[in-house]
Amino acid sequence: MKTIKAFAPATIANFNVGYDVLGVALSHIGDEVELAFNGKQENRIVAMINGEHLPVEADKNCCSVVVRKMQEHLGVFSGVDIRITKGFASGSGLGSSSASSAAAAFAYNELTGRPFTRKELVAFAAEGERVACGSAHVDNVAPSVLGGIVLAKGKETNDLIELPIIENLYAVTLFPDIKINTSDSRKILKDHIPLKTASKQVGLMGAFVSSLYDKDLQRFSSSLQDLMIEPMRSLLIPEFYEMKTAAMAHHALAFGISGSGPSVFAVAEGEKKAQGILTVLREVYRPAAIKIQTHVHALGKKNGAKIINRDYALH
Amino acid sequence: MKTIKAFAPATIANFNVGYDVLGVALSHIGDEVELAFNGKQENRIVAMINGEHLPVEADKNCCSVVVRKMQEHLGVFSGVDIRITKGFASGSGLGSSSASSAAAAFAYNELTGRPFTRKELVAFAAEGERVACGSAHVDNVAPSVLGGIVLAKGKETNDLIELPIIENLYAVTLFPDIKINTSDSRKILKDHIPLKTASKQVGLMGAFVSSLYDKDLQRFSSSLQDLMIEPMRSLLIPEFYEMKTAAMAHHALAFGISGSGPSVFAVAEGEKKAQGILTVLREVYRPAAIKIQTHVHALGKKNGAKIINRDYALH
Repeated sequence: MKTIKAFAPATIANFNVGYDVLGVALSHIGDEVELAFNGKQENRIVAMINGEHLPVEADKNCCSVVVRKMQEHLGVFSGVDIRITKGFASGSGLGSSSASSAAAAFAYNELTGRPFTRKELVAFAAEGERVACGSAHVDNVAPSVLGGIVLAKGKETNDLIELPIIENLYAVTLFPDIKINTSDSRKILKDHIPLKTASKQVGLMGAFVSSLYDKDLQRFSSSLQDLMIEPMRSLLIPEFYEMKTAAMAHHALAFGISGSGPSVFAVAEGEKKAQGILTVLREVYRPAAIKIQTHVHALGKKNGAKIINRDYALH
Repeated sequence: MKTIKAFAPATIANFNVGYDVLGVALSHIGDEVELAFNGKQENRIVAMINGEHLPVEADKNCCSVVVRKMQEHLGVFSGVDIRITKGFASGSGLGSSSASSAAAAFAYNELTGRPFTRKELVAFAAEGERVACGSAHVDNVAPSVLGGIVLAKGKETNDLIELPIIENLYAVTLFPDIKINTSDSRKILKDHIPLKTASKQVGLMGAFVSSLYDKDLQRFSSSLQDLMIEPMRSLLIPEFYEMKTAAMAHHALAFGISGSGPSVFAVAEGEKKAQGILTVLREVYRPAAIKIQTHVHALGKKNGAKIINRDYALH
């Protein structure tokens, strides 16, 4: 039986400067999705490891929905059995459903002889987001599929822009194990923001993108700010500003909320500074009885979805 | 008597994608400011050509205010006589006060042995904007001083980013001679805008900046949009959408409002297409009894403020 296993990484959506339009792939954690043709016309979730609370019905699970959309597009319904291994917590704000959706899209494309380009897979993976989160946002799935830093100026394949990355950047992520789901986190946002704030944020995005091309770390740091969302969403994250202050005092280039939270992230130049920031962030939470999960990730290109195992032999 | 004459160009502020943070220098029109030491401690406006309605009192004229600010900063009050030649209409939305302010700053810097860098002159020129328009915006003065396309992510010298330009781009400007002053044009803007609109505009700015570095004309065109301001300000400009439709149908890469209007602009690849757009824009206004002024400008670097005459001989 032809079998393919793909990995797709966790991601930081928004990345401070680009609410709903920017995302960054993380190297260290992600989900694995294994697909095997099952000789039927339907797709089945046959294993869900570390995600017992997640739906396994074919029309509700993000992976099977992604595969189904690809089958519909191809007009070929070669059913698969799907084994999902979650590599990090869902509800963390690190793109859990996106990582599964991206891995499913990547695996099914490989299994069927690559009918789609890597960029084209983003739209299918976004269908997993639609079933998991209620809307087909691409700010997590795009970097999970493509790797690196991806700007999505719209929802079309042509709207995905793979931005350059400055070398030797690391991200620290900290997930405080409190429950904030995406829809609650969206509800705390006001519908309208001041025109002046919007204008400044537009300027910050322009400066941020130019910093990547010019490899200007000082500008990268000064532009990686979130004026629109952080003032509201930070209210839901215990000790947010204590962590931010501590991180920035320890050489962080930026600090912010990952996606809709509650995970937070810091960016640093070099792994040593990243580890130092991790240490001070842990200190902030030490007095609290909140369980945390932390990781350090190299940021870079070519850390998108990938095949980690293939078995084409007959069983 | 030591005499210096400087030219500084008209500019398109906002340039669709960057309300209050982006500006572009135009090559074809601008103001001239001539300075000569007068042996006194005060500055005097001794000529104002083509700008009879503009203030000539030293504390109200933008040029003399700029010179005064530079003198205060240097702590040296070598007074100058100032001759201003306006090269285009004030109230046009093409940065009239900025061109004068930029030329004054550039000329005084040259006259006093270049104590400031070109970038540092922007803050002084912005003081001319403060007296002329009520606030020290830099989105016109920065490109007028520096040339090219300038992003201002803040008001500090370090916040000015000189973006790359794609070769062979031309701007068409059309000034319909109706009266909209900047403060009226600001009043029509709502204080708040939808978060979703802001988010999309942020994405457009990111895409626009990346298009300049990647020299991607298709992305340049698709990202050069104004979702925030145009829907409101276009109401003040007769036949705005008729002109936009006509321009876009004739190979314009973008069309929009210059600054706070009423001037509009189109961007085209190559001078021939620019001339073609100019022709169709003129057609739109032909039935109306509105006087128009039109120009075609090469966009490019090194079209900022410059010295056009110097006379160091003794009179």
